[in-house]
Amino acid sequence: MKKNNQISEQYIINKYLRKLHFKKKETFDFKNDASFLKIPKNKQIVITNDSILEEIDFFINDPPESIANKIITYNLSDISSMGAYPYAYTLSLCLPKKINDNWLNKFTKRLFFLQKKYNFFLIGGDLSKSKKIIISSSFFGFVPKGKIINRTGSLKKHDIWVTGNIGESTIGLNVRKKNIKVNRVFKKYFLNKYLYPNHFSLGHKIVNYASSAIDISDGFYGDLNKLVSEKNIGAQIENKLLPYSKRTINLIKRKIITHDYLLSAGDDYELIFTVDPKYSGQIKRISKFNKVKITKVGKIIQKKGIYLDNKKIKIINKSFKHFF
Amino acid sequence: MKKNNQISEQYIINKYLRKLHFKKKETFDFKNDASFLKIPKNKQIVITNDSILEEIDFFINDPPESIANKIITYNLSDISSMGAYPYAYTLSLCLPKKINDNWLNKFTKRLFFLQKKYNFFLIGGDLSKSKKIIISSSFFGFVPKGKIINRTGSLKKHDIWVTGNIGESTIGLNVRKKNIKVNRVFKKYFLNKYLYPNHFSLGHKIVNYASSAIDISDGFYGDLNKLVSEKNIGAQIENKLLPYSKRTINLIKRKIITHDYLLSAGDDYELIFTVDPKYSGQIKRISKFNKVKITKVGKIIQKKGIYLDNKKIKIINKSFKHFF
Repeated sequence: MKKNNQISEQYIINKYLRKLHFKKKETFDFKNDASFLKIPKNKQIVITNDSILEEIDFFINDPPESIANKIITYNLSDISSMGAYPYAYTLSLCLPKKINDNWLNKFTKRLFFLQKKYNFFLIGGDLSKSKKIIISSSFFGFVPKGKIINRTGSLKKHDIWVTGNIGESTIGLNVRKKNIKVNRVFKKYFLNKYLYPNHFSLGHKIVNYASSAIDISDGFYGDLNKLVSEKNIGAQIENKLLPYSKRTINLIKRKIITHDYLLSAGDDYELIFTVDPKYSGQIKRISKFNKVKITKVGKIIQKKGIYLDNKKIKIINKSFKHFF
Repeated sequence: MKKNNQISEQYIINKYLRKLHFKKKETFDFKNDASFLKIPKNKQIVITNDSILEEIDFFINDPPESIANKIITYNLSDISSMGAYPYAYTLSLCLPKKINDNWLNKFTKRLFFLQKKYNFFLIGGDLSKSKKIIISSSFFGFVPKGKIINRTGSLKKHDIWVTGNIGESTIGLNVRKKNIKVNRVFKKYFLNKYLYPNHFSLGHKIVNYASSAIDISDGFYGDLNKLVSEKNIGAQIENKLLPYSKRTINLIKRKIITHDYLLSAGDDYELIFTVDPKYSGQIKRISKFNKVKITKVGKIIQKKGIYLDNKKIKIINKSFKHFF
């Protein structure tokens, strides 16, 4: 292992990043400043772009594996919400002095693991020095031509489905910040959900059935609202159908957390999507076959607003909050 | 104009960023988290990715227009060096509190101007708060299928060409840092070259003739070396052919700066490229027709190393320098 003062850009590329290009021709072995994309016939390319910043999306002492997990998950959930599967990504790494071989090793091992798991490769990027860790990434995915799932395609009477469980990562963040006190088993469970968020990766399997889709990054209510707010429609949600884990239900029952809070907060990176009721069977089969939780939680209605058991919900749009 | 404490993410998108998407369908009016790319028939897509950081690539008090110019130029020179023309880009903006409407207005006006000039649009991105300004961007360009200019395609006896003038931006940086003292006219001229670098934008016009190409971002010697170092070839440069502006020649004559320094330093964002001598006429015509300076400065030789008038040059590879 090298001492910090011997780490060069070329050393980082050769030792840690080159293994991530999976020897794909498109990357020119990282010897050009640019790369190219091969698009399969009848496919369309989808792009998304996300950044994570120290002190905002993670803490400096978080495991490097968790930071790697977040930059990938944040982007893959966007790719999945378009009905696409991932193909390649770029990585802009702004790294401070405190980064050493040990950190780089753990960080890139996790990237390698996730690349193998979801089948995509690193196509390029750049390295800069900075005071704090900032990682920016563009992801490229493929979707059959004309099949992109749009945010605004939902229609009256379509069912509303949600993947996974609601609120787990948010509980983890609150455990981490010591806002919530729980026993050791619960602590480990929820912290894990915060550090290693798991996105719904099967967007490409619902592409023929979903009329709209969004990944949950601003809370269930806020993101559901984005699916209906552009049109003269709304959403009716049944409280008893909402999917929570057993441990989350335990916390709600003990009044340690409210379901109202969990529905307003939270980066779950799961999907909310709408489907014509005639395709209910197909969605259930996708859920069963892939052993993934997908739950019908309500319906699109011809009335503006989000309703939980007929009670209108006040939506706080996070992107209208003060930026500075 | 809004006070800083009223600036929201949505306000920045609506007031400043939305005008940059040129109403292209691919952007979904910035209402989805992802976008798509339409690829013309017989074209291949090229990707590049660059970031600029406060205190490294620019100074906090630099004009916002200069910062906008740099993020675009750094990326467009990479696109051009592949033989491509630009199509779209993403923008990851990490902005600190000190940013106000005035800054955003000037910054995005310059982006708009450059987008119109070179014909590309903003396809997506994200906004984050940070202590310093950090801007990361992915650019997408098109090149005829199979025509990408590679870094390693140069062959013995090919001519070496360089676009524009060497070293102007580096002189500007040194003027700015007060390492060099010059009169007011010179100061304005060179500062301008540093603040508003101008890339060679005609890479797509040399795509049928160039056997290899690279943009100058690590200095003329360093980047020329990357064109030959992978093979058993080298480069023979004629000192008297190297292109300098009249003002640069004046500084060299007055020993205020050496040409050796200018050839080793410098981000000019011009191109070095190699061409089979049989295409000399075509390159000259491209230069004349587009009123762009393109100069033949030497030849690829069958001997490793870079030679200036038969004197072997010692190359310092910047990317092997200590990163931390």
